[in-house]
Amino acid sequence: MPTLSVFTDVPMAQKLEGSLLKTYKQDDDPNKMFLAYKVCMTSEGRPWVSSVVRKTRMQIAQDPSLNYEYTPVMGMKSFIQASLNLLFGKNSQVIVENRAGGVQTVGDSGAFQLGAQFLKSWCQNSQIVYIVSSQKEPHGLIFQDMGFTVYEHTFWDSAHLCLDPNMLLDVVERAPHGCVFVIGSIGNCRLTSSQWTQLMTLMKGKEIFPFFDIPYQGLSTGDLEEDAIFLHYFVSQGFEFFCSQSLSKNFGIYDEGVGTLVVVALNNQLLLRVLSQLTNFARALWLNPPTTGARIITSVLCNPAMQGEWRQSLEGVVENIMMTKEKVKEKLRLLGTPGSWDHITEQKGSHSYLGLNSQQVEYLISKKHIYIPKNGRINFTCINSYNIDYITASINEAVCFTKDSEK
Amino acid sequence: MPTLSVFTDVPMAQKLEGSLLKTYKQDDDPNKMFLAYKVCMTSEGRPWVSSVVRKTRMQIAQDPSLNYEYTPVMGMKSFIQASLNLLFGKNSQVIVENRAGGVQTVGDSGAFQLGAQFLKSWCQNSQIVYIVSSQKEPHGLIFQDMGFTVYEHTFWDSAHLCLDPNMLLDVVERAPHGCVFVIGSIGNCRLTSSQWTQLMTLMKGKEIFPFFDIPYQGLSTGDLEEDAIFLHYFVSQGFEFFCSQSLSKNFGIYDEGVGTLVVVALNNQLLLRVLSQLTNFARALWLNPPTTGARIITSVLCNPAMQGEWRQSLEGVVENIMMTKEKVKEKLRLLGTPGSWDHITEQKGSHSYLGLNSQQVEYLISKKHIYIPKNGRINFTCINSYNIDYITASINEAVCFTKDSEK
Repeated sequence: MPTLSVFTDVPMAQKLEGSLLKTYKQDDDPNKMFLAYKVCMTSEGRPWVSSVVRKTRMQIAQDPSLNYEYTPVMGMKSFIQASLNLLFGKNSQVIVENRAGGVQTVGDSGAFQLGAQFLKSWCQNSQIVYIVSSQKEPHGLIFQDMGFTVYEHTFWDSAHLCLDPNMLLDVVERAPHGCVFVIGSIGNCRLTSSQWTQLMTLMKGKEIFPFFDIPYQGLSTGDLEEDAIFLHYFVSQGFEFFCSQSLSKNFGIYDEGVGTLVVVALNNQLLLRVLSQLTNFARALWLNPPTTGARIITSVLCNPAMQGEWRQSLEGVVENIMMTKEKVKEKLRLLGTPGSWDHITEQKGSHSYLGLNSQQVEYLISKKHIYIPKNGRINFTCINSYNIDYITASINEAVCFTKDSEK
Repeated sequence: MPTLSVFTDVPMAQKLEGSLLKTYKQDDDPNKMFLAYKVCMTSEGRPWVSSVVRKTRMQIAQDPSLNYEYTPVMGMKSFIQASLNLLFGKNSQVIVENRAGGVQTVGDSGAFQLGAQFLKSWCQNSQIVYIVSSQKEPHGLIFQDMGFTVYEHTFWDSAHLCLDPNMLLDVVERAPHGCVFVIGSIGNCRLTSSQWTQLMTLMKGKEIFPFFDIPYQGLSTGDLEEDAIFLHYFVSQGFEFFCSQSLSKNFGIYDEGVGTLVVVALNNQLLLRVLSQLTNFARALWLNPPTTGARIITSVLCNPAMQGEWRQSLEGVVENIMMTKEKVKEKLRLLGTPGSWDHITEQKGSHSYLGLNSQQVEYLISKKHIYIPKNGRINFTCINSYNIDYITASINEAVCFTKDSEK
């Protein structure tokens, strides 16, 4: 008689994400293209790597004085300090007062995993999480799998083709007391100073816990400080918060799993207690975080010349993004595509809404083999001189086609 | 009124491990030494790194063709295949029949975390775990934190100073139906062929699920195949199992977090279902495993000349360990230390029992500042030409002192 398997009742897991990429890969059309990569691409269509990374990697490989012993569970101290300085500025209140700290994590998913485990155990009144739809995968799913109730929302006003701060304020107004609010690229949303005050007053009043997500500081405006400035507002209002800080994308070391879960507490004692609990969770998750990425980043951040070169490389990427957006807009204008396309250049960063409806998106995918997410939010670094004409002509076709079909 | 902290009720976490190392670090004595490092040390007292690692690291840093894109959630395919071949042999039944697979994890803690999450969700009749005491931290704690009941045991017979297979068989005999059995360096235990049969028959009968732990293949006997040979016994008896395979220690890349959770199932379909579930857990834990370590290892394993050099470097380490053990035994003989010390050379691998009782261990720590674990299991690679005389003289003193105090 054959043995019965222990695994008999285990079903095939549902694929949670990547279905768009999978369909793209299975498409045989020679013109197919994928405009939804998570990372910045070069004009040759390869993942972007900052020029300082290759140099530093070589330096590290050649350094005979380095040892490769286990790192502390909390991670490389010098890396965490350099990351915190980058996020808040060396002279920030929270750094001077010793009440900002961090645990090195395996990527930003690791940071969310760690933060969610902590909130599950220690903040049992905060079991509801609000997150923007584009972050539902994978970050929202981490909370959901752990038993949190997760609500999605968006600030993209598809009627007026703009990011609308009032949509955000509405969500916060309706959110329950003590929930967790994951706040990502809010800088794009252009809140006025009174809207910022309104947002923070609402959050304070309801004791909403902010969980920030800074996945690519510097790649939104090209200015590292500018991209994290909204954190200062929350610091100055005395908020405690978590922040997932990932330096993978802005260095171009996607495969090293570099992340930090940053903690800001009211005082040093509270901070140390939170960090001690996080360290225990990290011990069970991976014991020691990997160091190559952290070593590269620390070397660059601690060397003013290298840091300067890195900053310049970020500015270069952002300039290219803005140039691409201008070109797309101009080409659509020349093609006489109906509608205004100013919203393309009004948005910052690599990932922005094209402002297409679901019918137009569907047209691009099925007729033109251009793969973009349902919400029309694409990665503009995927557009380059080789494909821009095909892409803009296709957008024009999609818009005209759906206009015609409305008649 | 000052704001109340969200973290008010969070206590300082208890330190789970490392207290011996901490006490050692705080000791001001110039003769202090620590004989409980987890990793192999060189004769200069630094963590050992295989000579092939530095070369390969350089090659990788210089290779302009490599890209640093995100790896698949499951990890680097070539790394997993090379690891499986190393563990089972290319022509093993489970590889030929496509029913062995793996997920790349962040170190061996990551492998246990992943495996435990799976067993928690999908094998709900297997919520009791047996583990040897020396593995309780950190692997046993991972199960415990997840709600498993964890029982510790040992096969070290401190009366007869030997590893006793019958102690292992006794534990299995008393273990309940369907439990999980973590099996580490069982190769040291020297089971006879009839004892192996007895062990596997017992486990089969009770449907005990084996979770193997291969933390340093090749560093026990110096022979990679020999160190994993007991896996073949389980394969040939048609067992399904998990195995945490870590290649950090036998390459000397401790800080890169290289691990694999290996799965063996009855057939390919079952394997794919299990891997799909594990991939979903990994997605939430770290999304993409780090690659530097995996790249180094894959390069070495896929290059016959480099693999040969690596194998030689392992043999070298094991020869040194045996030489050190011989020297310790000989020095104790010359000092006229009471008792037989053959058990030192009868044990394989870097970590072996000195065969001291708790009073003698306490003496070494408090009087001689030699830090060793309570059970007297030390890392013999921490002993070198600089400290061997002090260590053996101190052991002699401890044994004579406790002999005297017995009178």
